[in-house]
Amino acid sequence: MHTGLSTAVLWCGLALSATAQDLTAGRWIDLTHPFNENSVYWPTAEMFTKTEVFHGHTEGGWFYSAYNFAAAEHGGTHMDSPIHFAEGAHTTDQVPLDRLIGPGVVIDVAEKAAADVDYRVSAADIEAFEAEHGPIGAGTIVLLNTGRAGLYGDRTAYMGTDERGEEAVAKLHFPGLGADGAALLVERGIAAVGIDTPSIDYGQSKDFAAHVELMTHNIPAFENVGDMSDLPATGAMIVALPMMIEGGSGGPLRIVAHLPGG
Amino acid sequence: MHTGLSTAVLWCGLALSATAQDLTAGRWIDLTHPFNENSVYWPTAEMFTKTEVFHGHTEGGWFYSAYNFAAAEHGGTHMDSPIHFAEGAHTTDQVPLDRLIGPGVVIDVAEKAAADVDYRVSAADIEAFEAEHGPIGAGTIVLLNTGRAGLYGDRTAYMGTDERGEEAVAKLHFPGLGADGAALLVERGIAAVGIDTPSIDYGQSKDFAAHVELMTHNIPAFENVGDMSDLPATGAMIVALPMMIEGGSGGPLRIVAHLPGG
Repeated sequence: MHTGLSTAVLWCGLALSATAQDLTAGRWIDLTHPFNENSVYWPTAEMFTKTEVFHGHTEGGWFYSAYNFAAAEHGGTHMDSPIHFAEGAHTTDQVPLDRLIGPGVVIDVAEKAAADVDYRVSAADIEAFEAEHGPIGAGTIVLLNTGRAGLYGDRTAYMGTDERGEEAVAKLHFPGLGADGAALLVERGIAAVGIDTPSIDYGQSKDFAAHVELMTHNIPAFENVGDMSDLPATGAMIVALPMMIEGGSGGPLRIVAHLPGG
Repeated sequence: MHTGLSTAVLWCGLALSATAQDLTAGRWIDLTHPFNENSVYWPTAEMFTKTEVFHGHTEGGWFYSAYNFAAAEHGGTHMDSPIHFAEGAHTTDQVPLDRLIGPGVVIDVAEKAAADVDYRVSAADIEAFEAEHGPIGAGTIVLLNTGRAGLYGDRTAYMGTDERGEEAVAKLHFPGLGADGAALLVERGIAAVGIDTPSIDYGQSKDFAAHVELMTHNIPAFENVGDMSDLPATGAMIVALPMMIEGGSGGPLRIVAHLPGG
């Protein structure tokens, strides 16, 4: 296909690698956990339910399937809108597309998180990433890979407890973004941040410092993001589209990544 | 910015216009209606509701906002998954990304729909589009612009009735895709189809022929799509990401379009 263009495509691909990303080549990766009865919710939050309206053959002769669904905004793969932790900040429908679509970087802290379930990604981790891969530019979508997306099906392993209710909150253990890391990302002018754990603050957080720091600056957080192991440290384009809930504090998110290539 | 690259970018943009679409230039348009109490649902379907969990200052000192939500899968800007009208076809989580992301064409039938609220887009309309703009290739996302997205806030104008319940269904009037049009799109091997009305079948449909024809061939339909008036007939890239409901027959959809350009 298009063999007459291939040389030009290759040349342009090289020439434009610093700025261009061709949507019609390369491949897409889905970074979304499906919503089902095992979807991860905060111990105090309403879990996802799906209720059958009809499923089968109708009197009219055609097959028909339909469901109702219900959930808290903050569960499964979802977005925390800035208003979730910052008065007057963007609601779900107000988050601009340039915070949801943009160049992605992946900061891998899997080794540190494997050694310490309460690990917090620090400013030093971000600076070490920049020393290796170059500065994180304004408008970047920064993904934090703790290597824990594969535990998602097992709540006890993934977040420290499978219990529900207020008393379970103290038993939450998973890695997050530290306050100094959040402050540095704010300084960089990033578009958004994502993590493969239930919350951008670590499970034992008592003050939700990363949420407050990011969201005061209108930076949304993508939580319970799926497996990032196929993503390069730089070079992916992230498209993260939340359900457009008017006035919402968050909502279900479908997040995909485009990898360049022929 | 990047002035040293601008000539190369321009040249490549021209040279690659037949195949490439650079995500880092151009602009994005949102084609999604927000979910709120006025969101359009079928007269018999459960409407969208959002319930406050908390909104205000906490004892911990930080601001906090969170909601629960509930709805039928088929309302607002949403996807009909193929299983909605075809036994054994794809559920929401099974629809592959290459049916959700791809080159878009916009077939404008606004004039005909303005003259006839029950208008059905025909095979002849599609062939007339192809005569002007070239053949609709396999993998295309075909959007039908009836010019009626602007009526969305007024259910009576948009769909013929604001009444609820089984007896309101007979009062539905809005344009859709005709059976012969659906059959031709299946023949073309399109990825998906979208329309700016509540359903891919017109309001007075009794047999849901377009749904059955498309979905039997695993082609999803995007419904209640927003205003398409800024989209070109060809040349946009469509990204339509539904909430990933496992086993779902559809679900809330965020649909955006990328327009090329410097």
